[in-house]
Amino acid sequence: MTVNVGVIGVGMIGQDHIRRLTTVLSGSEVVAVADADPARARTVADGVPGARAYATGQDLIRDDAVDAVVVASWGPTHEEYVLACIEAGKSVFCEKPLATTQEACLRILDAEMKHGKRLVQVGFMRRYDPAYRALKETVASGAIGAPLFVHCAHRNPSVPATYTSDMAINDTSVHDIDIVRWLLDEEVVATSVLTPRRNRRGGELRDPIFVLFEMASGALVDVEISVNIAYGYDIRGEIVGETGVAALAESNPVVLKREGAFSGRVPADWRERFVRAFDLEFQEWINATVSGTATGPSSWDGYAATVVADAALEALRTGTRTTVSIRERPDFYTSKAGL
Amino acid sequence: MTVNVGVIGVGMIGQDHIRRLTTVLSGSEVVAVADADPARARTVADGVPGARAYATGQDLIRDDAVDAVVVASWGPTHEEYVLACIEAGKSVFCEKPLATTQEACLRILDAEMKHGKRLVQVGFMRRYDPAYRALKETVASGAIGAPLFVHCAHRNPSVPATYTSDMAINDTSVHDIDIVRWLLDEEVVATSVLTPRRNRRGGELRDPIFVLFEMASGALVDVEISVNIAYGYDIRGEIVGETGVAALAESNPVVLKREGAFSGRVPADWRERFVRAFDLEFQEWINATVSGTATGPSSWDGYAATVVADAALEALRTGTRTTVSIRERPDFYTSKAGL
Amino acid sequence: MTVNVGVIGVGMIGQDHIRRLTTVLSGSEVVAVADADPARARTVADGVPGARAYATGQDLIRDDAVDAVVVASWGPTHEEYVLACIEAGKSVFCEKPLATTQEACLRILDAEMKHGKRLVQVGFMRRYDPAYRALKETVASGAIGAPLFVHCAHRNPSVPATYTSDMAINDTSVHDIDIVRWLLDEEVVATSVLTPRRNRRGGELRDPIFVLFEMASGALVDVEISVNIAYGYDIRGEIVGETGVAALAESNPVVLKREGAFSGRVPADWRERFVRAFDLEFQEWINATVSGTATGPSSWDGYAATVVADAALEALRTGTRTTVSIRERPDFYTSKAGL
Amino acid sequence: MTVNVGVIGVGMIGQDHIRRLTTVLSGSEVVAVADADPARARTVADGVPGARAYATGQDLIRDDAVDAVVVASWGPTHEEYVLACIEAGKSVFCEKPLATTQEACLRILDAEMKHGKRLVQVGFMRRYDPAYRALKETVASGAIGAPLFVHCAHRNPSVPATYTSDMAINDTSVHDIDIVRWLLDEEVVATSVLTPRRNRRGGELRDPIFVLFEMASGALVDVEISVNIAYGYDIRGEIVGETGVAALAESNPVVLKREGAFSGRVPADWRERFVRAFDLEFQEWINATVSGTATGPSSWDGYAATVVADAALEALRTGTRTTVSIRERPDFYTSKAGL
Repeated sequence: MTVNVGVIGVGMIGQDHIRRLTTVLSGSEVVAVADADPARARTVADGVPGARAYATGQDLIRDDAVDAVVVASWGPTHEEYVLACIEAGKSVFCEKPLATTQEACLRILDAEMKHGKRLVQVGFMRRYDPAYRALKETVASGAIGAPLFVHCAHRNPSVPATYTSDMAINDTSVHDIDIVRWLLDEEVVATSVLTPRRNRRGGELRDPIFVLFEMASGALVDVEISVNIAYGYDIRGEIVGETGVAALAESNPVVLKREGAFSGRVPADWRERFVRAFDLEFQEWINATVSGTATGPSSWDGYAATVVADAALEALRTGTRTTVSIRERPDFYTSKAGL
Repeated sequence: MTVNVGVIGVGMIGQDHIRRLTTVLSGSEVVAVADADPARARTVADGVPGARAYATGQDLIRDDAVDAVVVASWGPTHEEYVLACIEAGKSVFCEKPLATTQEACLRILDAEMKHGKRLVQVGFMRRYDPAYRALKETVASGAIGAPLFVHCAHRNPSVPATYTSDMAINDTSVHDIDIVRWLLDEEVVATSVLTPRRNRRGGELRDPIFVLFEMASGALVDVEISVNIAYGYDIRGEIVGETGVAALAESNPVVLKREGAFSGRVPADWRERFVRAFDLEFQEWINATVSGTATGPSSWDGYAATVVADAALEALRTGTRTTVSIRERPDFYTSKAGL
Repeated sequence: MTVNVGVIGVGMIGQDHIRRLTTVLSGSEVVAVADADPARARTVADGVPGARAYATGQDLIRDDAVDAVVVASWGPTHEEYVLACIEAGKSVFCEKPLATTQEACLRILDAEMKHGKRLVQVGFMRRYDPAYRALKETVASGAIGAPLFVHCAHRNPSVPATYTSDMAINDTSVHDIDIVRWLLDEEVVATSVLTPRRNRRGGELRDPIFVLFEMASGALVDVEISVNIAYGYDIRGEIVGETGVAALAESNPVVLKREGAFSGRVPADWRERFVRAFDLEFQEWINATVSGTATGPSSWDGYAATVVADAALEALRTGTRTTVSIRERPDFYTSKAGL
Repeated sequence: MTVNVGVIGVGMIGQDHIRRLTTVLSGSEVVAVADADPARARTVADGVPGARAYATGQDLIRDDAVDAVVVASWGPTHEEYVLACIEAGKSVFCEKPLATTQEACLRILDAEMKHGKRLVQVGFMRRYDPAYRALKETVASGAIGAPLFVHCAHRNPSVPATYTSDMAINDTSVHDIDIVRWLLDEEVVATSVLTPRRNRRGGELRDPIFVLFEMASGALVDVEISVNIAYGYDIRGEIVGETGVAALAESNPVVLKREGAFSGRVPADWRERFVRAFDLEFQEWINATVSGTATGPSSWDGYAATVVADAALEALRTGTRTTVSIRERPDFYTSKAGL
């Protein structure tokens, strides 16, 4: 069975997903696109044999030829499209954030629970990265004992001038929030943000920052967020347990020795680093859609990440430790059917 | 456009290719299968929606619904099927060996040249491995100067009792023969085989062996072939140039520290090590088929590998340096259109 | 010229220094020992040709045959012996702590400044570790831009039952305090201590802890202190700059591949990890003594480490960020003559 | 007890040994020097308090104040000085080669056996390198099973114009000959030398070469000798056993990440790479001298290396496999008292 996909939002990310769905992965076709810019929607549709352009996301969702929907539009529009998909009983892949407010996320949770089975997969692609998966398996094997710390670094070579200090939390650290929740299989209960000396490459931008998360078990997570560090895109993660540690290995294809040094490559950007994760994420989404369900990061994960990010934003603004007030997790979202 | 593929030979390898073509890659469907064992052909066809089973490979090739053919049958049958595909003007992916004798390979070269454009891709998957590609690019960049040596190791954890000493050359070293020809972009001109102390794990098997290749430029290649080395599947490659060296990096997702040691994983077998290479190999085959041509390892490469392997077999038997007598390369096969 | 050394305190550490001074390094002889346990002093003296045992450290210091003194006795006795050495104008190597209170340290500073030139070297051996030296040189070269973070881990396999939570600050983190002051060449201005979930291997011991230091420049230092982590002795350090990062490399002599894994050794304890640092530390002390001065970690460094450790202890007890109140650094101690 | 050392030959190497004996190691003094250039002997003696200059090595050896002798003079003079030391019953450290002909080596063996106990240590410093020691221990532990291969690389950044093709065997590969004999604890029985394409950086120099050694057990050793490879001094060694492999690890103090790459240092030359080995080699020589014996590489090892090097030279000249004709090892030299 081929899954007929509609893509809402066909900017750079949406177009990359179309490329992936049509030329890399098995089992899907893109049959419809929509964009806030109708001309762009039409241009993109012209490049995909058999795809039609819609004036609005809602029109696209209503099309009976569309089995499943990718939401890659502007964040504030996510809630509306995800709710419409649930209403239509269609599988939906929603890029993060699930929604821009906790209340909006809760409305999605309620709608999905009312529908009765999972339809939503949120775009936290790191969970599909083979190295992160191996890390989680290592911890789960008991090889290092109970986790005590997670040390993370999230380093990005540079950001555009439009990048604001809040985005370091909302857009950047949100991946770290999700991955530590997933690695440790527990919720964040409090957060603090420390602001060291500024990296002058970013002007007045509040960069880097050091974000701390306290987990329900008492494990402590620290995340260095550096968005202007020039040298490359470098994602580090190390879990410290009671009797050992496990860390993401450096990944590099070739060791070169010349001019007095050995060297290897650091990824240039997130595309290079997570290309496999994106492929696997969408392949699993297609496969789950065929099975009539959703797996992987759920609406609950989208909600939880938003609640934690909100607390971290407050911690950044106030300079104090902030507790995370999260709902009790519904049984609906505790299934281990996902990742 | 979807490429409709017929698969001849649906043993373990053939079935894995079917899985890849139907559930991993984009742009292909498997519409026909054939096997020396008709019952197996039928069983496999039953598992692939829309596929039919043929009594013979020739029948399958004649089916107009088949756009392109994968030959994964017993080596001695390859020539017949490849020639039939060329006759039918159909793209063919042929697992190594292209054919079991030099003469058979030459008949394929002649047929393909007569046809007028490339139709054949031979299954030397290492050329698609991201690490080997990065290694070739590093050398091509001039970063290490002109190559002087290639040091290789081809280590396999264990082989079945049916594995013979000749297979170390014909089935195992043939991948090394192809990859060094490709890495250095030149032919092998002579070969020697040294036989150190036996690994007692293999009984009377002539294992390990140390194979030397002299390249046209004078560069020297040494390959340790160890097929019973227990610890894992480990493919090493280092190119020594005039001013530097470049080597395949160790690849491993997680570093674990426990009980006084740090450690990482060695691949368990060739499937784990080259899973990405197989995917990319077939994706490029599908894409080239759509474009009406073939890329990657050509019939010429299949012929050259056979000639070199024959010389290595003689070197193994006689214990002396053996020159490689290869035809002059036709212009037809010098195009840089491939990899 | 041979330096005639007297050693006060000949427990395990003191005896190891005697071994080093008599059988490893050049230019020194041990001529006198003293210990709170006179029998032990005598036994140790008997094993060193030409050495005599003294009833008290003061007697040893007074001996004209003693050119220079190593103080390796119980911490609370350090002040008295160091002051006596300064009074006698003799070079003194004092194991950390320089003294157990800030006031005592200040008395030593005053005495040494009154004497008019440096006589004291404090036992912060990490500054002599070749890897830390290379790390400092890398930062100094400008290769990573201005430092923003230092991420450290100080991991120890196990501690005896007598080890208390305060010792994690006073005895363990004090090495990290000194090394980050030295790496960044600036003082600590504030500190916080976080206490994650306990490692159950240590019972009620407050372990691990996570210590944060804010430096005068605004750079932020985090130190994971884990004293019961079982797997080995592992000292990690990474400096994050504006355009790059530099980290202590994993150090290991042999890579072993067997049973599906590659592996290497983690040091078993601090002796193995820092054996070269101890040798170099004492060789430089001997050499400086011959030159009539002292180099390396000074009384000021001993005082500063004590002030910061006191603040960290308070931070641990109160759970709040604590500012570090340190005197202004006298010109006397700003010489770059040392390390 | 302090060992009073006389040094014959005070060129660059001899002066470095004097530095080591007087300012790095414990237990020795340099009391006499001699050199073919009397002015140089005098100048060097002037820089060493208490040392006198001799007109000839024989005069130095006769001096009763000299307990032990370092021979670092021109190779052809070694035999004479070593024999004179044995005659005088004095411990002697002789830089490689022990002597320049097999016959001369045999005269030394005979003289030392007649004397009745070992007096000679030959300067094969690699045996003292901590990484090579760990490699030998790993093999001895049985972790990889019986050795089948040793793969070596001996890479040097550049050689002076006076360096000849024969020196690649006599001066360079001789270290590899010794270390594989020591690692595998057996003799070389045959050797071949292959000459790939020339490195144009060396003009007409026969560089690189690929030297093969067949060991008594049937294990095979291959050594890449590259003396003009520009990028650094790089000594690689990997032992392949029946069930695993063990290799010298890359050694580097700091990992630097900048400008899209991670990198570390390759040693600039043999001094940097083997500084610790030289220190340990001489410290063990001093200690053995105090004990009235010699340990480590023996006259037998010096003889065996010369025999193998002679065979390799013949193999290089004739282009054929050459058997190694070595005497039966006397019981005198089979003691495991050494390394």
